[in-house]
Amino acid sequence: MKISALTTDFYELTMIQGYFKKNINSPVVFDMFYRTNPYNGGYCIFTGIQELIDKLENFSFSSSDIKYLKSLKTFDNEFLDYLKDFKFTGTIYSVKEGNVVFANEPLIRIHTSLIEAQLIETIVLNTINFQTLIATKASRIKIAAKDSSVLEFGIRRAQGDGHFSATRAAYIGGCDATSNTVAGKKYNIPVSGTMAHSWIMSFEKEIDAFREFANLYPDNASFLLDTYDTLKSGLVNAIIVGKELKEKGKNFSVRLDSGDISYLSKKIRKALDENGLNDAKIVASNDLNENIIYQLKADNVPIDIWGVGTSLSTGGSQAALNGVYKLCEKDGIPTMKISNSAGKTTNPGIKDIYRFFDENDEAIADYICLTDEKTPTNDKDYTFYHPYIDEDYFIIHKNKKIKIEKLLIKTMENGKRIYKRESLEEIKKYSETQLARFHKSYKRQIYPHVYKISHSKKLKELKRKLIVEYKNRWDN
Amino acid sequence: MKISALTTDFYELTMIQGYFKKNINSPVVFDMFYRTNPYNGGYCIFTGIQELIDKLENFSFSSSDIKYLKSLKTFDNEFLDYLKDFKFTGTIYSVKEGNVVFANEPLIRIHTSLIEAQLIETIVLNTINFQTLIATKASRIKIAAKDSSVLEFGIRRAQGDGHFSATRAAYIGGCDATSNTVAGKKYNIPVSGTMAHSWIMSFEKEIDAFREFANLYPDNASFLLDTYDTLKSGLVNAIIVGKELKEKGKNFSVRLDSGDISYLSKKIRKALDENGLNDAKIVASNDLNENIIYQLKADNVPIDIWGVGTSLSTGGSQAALNGVYKLCEKDGIPTMKISNSAGKTTNPGIKDIYRFFDENDEAIADYICLTDEKTPTNDKDYTFYHPYIDEDYFIIHKNKKIKIEKLLIKTMENGKRIYKRESLEEIKKYSETQLARFHKSYKRQIYPHVYKISHSKKLKELKRKLIVEYKNRWDN
Repeated sequence: MKISALTTDFYELTMIQGYFKKNINSPVVFDMFYRTNPYNGGYCIFTGIQELIDKLENFSFSSSDIKYLKSLKTFDNEFLDYLKDFKFTGTIYSVKEGNVVFANEPLIRIHTSLIEAQLIETIVLNTINFQTLIATKASRIKIAAKDSSVLEFGIRRAQGDGHFSATRAAYIGGCDATSNTVAGKKYNIPVSGTMAHSWIMSFEKEIDAFREFANLYPDNASFLLDTYDTLKSGLVNAIIVGKELKEKGKNFSVRLDSGDISYLSKKIRKALDENGLNDAKIVASNDLNENIIYQLKADNVPIDIWGVGTSLSTGGSQAALNGVYKLCEKDGIPTMKISNSAGKTTNPGIKDIYRFFDENDEAIADYICLTDEKTPTNDKDYTFYHPYIDEDYFIIHKNKKIKIEKLLIKTMENGKRIYKRESLEEIKKYSETQLARFHKSYKRQIYPHVYKISHSKKLKELKRKLIVEYKNRWDN
Repeated sequence: MKISALTTDFYELTMIQGYFKKNINSPVVFDMFYRTNPYNGGYCIFTGIQELIDKLENFSFSSSDIKYLKSLKTFDNEFLDYLKDFKFTGTIYSVKEGNVVFANEPLIRIHTSLIEAQLIETIVLNTINFQTLIATKASRIKIAAKDSSVLEFGIRRAQGDGHFSATRAAYIGGCDATSNTVAGKKYNIPVSGTMAHSWIMSFEKEIDAFREFANLYPDNASFLLDTYDTLKSGLVNAIIVGKELKEKGKNFSVRLDSGDISYLSKKIRKALDENGLNDAKIVASNDLNENIIYQLKADNVPIDIWGVGTSLSTGGSQAALNGVYKLCEKDGIPTMKISNSAGKTTNPGIKDIYRFFDENDEAIADYICLTDEKTPTNDKDYTFYHPYIDEDYFIIHKNKKIKIEKLLIKTMENGKRIYKRESLEEIKKYSETQLARFHKSYKRQIYPHVYKISHSKKLKELKRKLIVEYKNRWDN
């Protein structure tokens, strides 16, 4: 499947025509990273790279794309001929899809020519920013939900065709199934759904609606309780039909979609149990998010399954991840973008990330160093420097029990995928496994413990040197 | 272009299999409406209906869709055979694309069979909710920007492929151009863009980067000022190259992407003017939204063009419109969904909306009545009732100078488009014209004057009657 290389900000095209004409096409290295963890949380689930690689392998201009560009009267024929044959030929290193990542770490490192690097910038950011945002939201919701299940119900409020990526990322981040049928087909994600109020209202009596549904779907019966009156009507009828199912050896669930979830679910659980329906599950939906679920779980509500829509599929009050794409080396020379704010100054040079784990396999800190440094090993001491506060450093002493893992792996080489294709199941499983290696304090919903992202001595010194050069240049 | 009819919540499919098997397929009427105006604002720009009609005309199951459904082992062959030939055959009335609308007005009215109505619910909501959200955001930003221009720069932070709809809606709502090239091609929207920091950094000196850009694009030169130092370097070099352009009879612009926009833009304007470059324009970008632009305009900043990205393409802190789709008539009998909250109780029956304008062509209020009532005319008095507060009513007395316009027009008939295809230019123009007919107090950024959405006496009485019936049924 071709992806139009017009999926780019227009200025990339005007700039690269300039590079093309001036014959400026240096070898460059770009980093993709984000600046702050979303939702006031402590981490992200890196997501989207498998799809990004597919897109980059198929990123090209169709003849109608070229015709369109010609119609803009901004590009000349020689340049358009060049675009006709455009293919991305770069090499990419990235964190594995589903891994836990943090602000200001280079998540993707792209080695290519300047023209290629500029042309793909927009699609890199569009793909990774959104999927990482949503997988992270799903992860937070799943953590809040603890042992209960989470279903993604967001397509009707999702941002247009963004629903595909939203459903994919939500599944990787922790959802158990989706209501989005077309995305379920595309990505092989379990689909799930019960009934709407309109089903109930299509029958003379609520109990008939429940009974017909149970006859049709005896293995997946779920009764929506609040069409008329949750406790006086819905629950009463669900218990009658639920007992009929139980006699046939079948289980069922009930769904709450309005009213106070804590009050109602406790009443419902009690009534179900008193009627011997201890296996029946309770589903809750209605504008949920991780904060509401967290509070309700703290109140021990007996909800088995959470249906989450809008906030999960859009990120809710935070609708975008602030990922950026910055030059870190050109013509073999480390570069950086200086900012008046220390936190926005980028990190120069070609970098790797190593994650240190203690003897209990718990993550201690990430160590960012230059690729031309020696690979860290557990038979030496390492000093971890704060990205810009001098006083903030610590040492991890040599210790044979420490494990050190390299986070960036080569995923594309000269424009060809070398990253193994993985099923979403595999990615999701990998993500869960990695997240489990972090102490829960880093996963707190708000005010989390800040996980340390540190620089090697050599990286720190390179950064300082370039800052001094810059200041000498502009302060005189 | 076919749209997969799997673009639906899974429960629609399980429900409609039930309707199909039980031979339940009543004629129904559904309303699409939203419950609260987004962004604490006073209105929405209704957007997406032209695309929705295209989707509904092409909404069908491919053989691979049917194979997928079969693989789920939930649907039987007879039902799948039925889906193979599915086509939407309903009739749709809707507000015209781009018109100004308000909470709790029926924006789309769908007359069809129960099965069809359920199957299309998700795509109706997915399409209209998001595009209306973004067109409204664009409208607010354009109002804040007053006479200055607004460019949409959001694709890199947009929600995956939602960027297409975002760019379309942003243009309708008031943006002048986009950086999203692929959407520019698809929708025939002007594309625009200048240069990134990487352009500047690709040259030895900043002035060379500016001069080369000016040589390449003498009619569209725009210089990004903040790569090294906005005032000490960028501005100085832009003035030199700008004067060279001026000698050739060409104009240019400068772009600010960091620092304090008010402080810097005033310094820059002054320096440009002092150098005779009074025609040069100043562009500002960097995480803008309507509130920031409003404040800066109040401070008389000399910005000519605003580049807005993330908040425009995603809705910012409000990432979804809460649009819903509710049954209002079944088998010719008005129905409604009662809620414990008066504001969430739906309005029964088949309804039209009439907008009353005063002698200055300024909108006074909207009047929702049943379609079987006589068309309102300006030779009678009309009492406008609040949707649920009895004391809140007012009368518009007969007055030949009052204009009354019907908002819902027939846009599809028996599954075929009858709504004239319009260019985005036409829709945008229509939208501007309609918005201009509202007093500015309704368009205030926050705490706007509340525009009155009123019910006719007959609608009010029908609603009351059904509520009483409901209460008698469940309160005993």
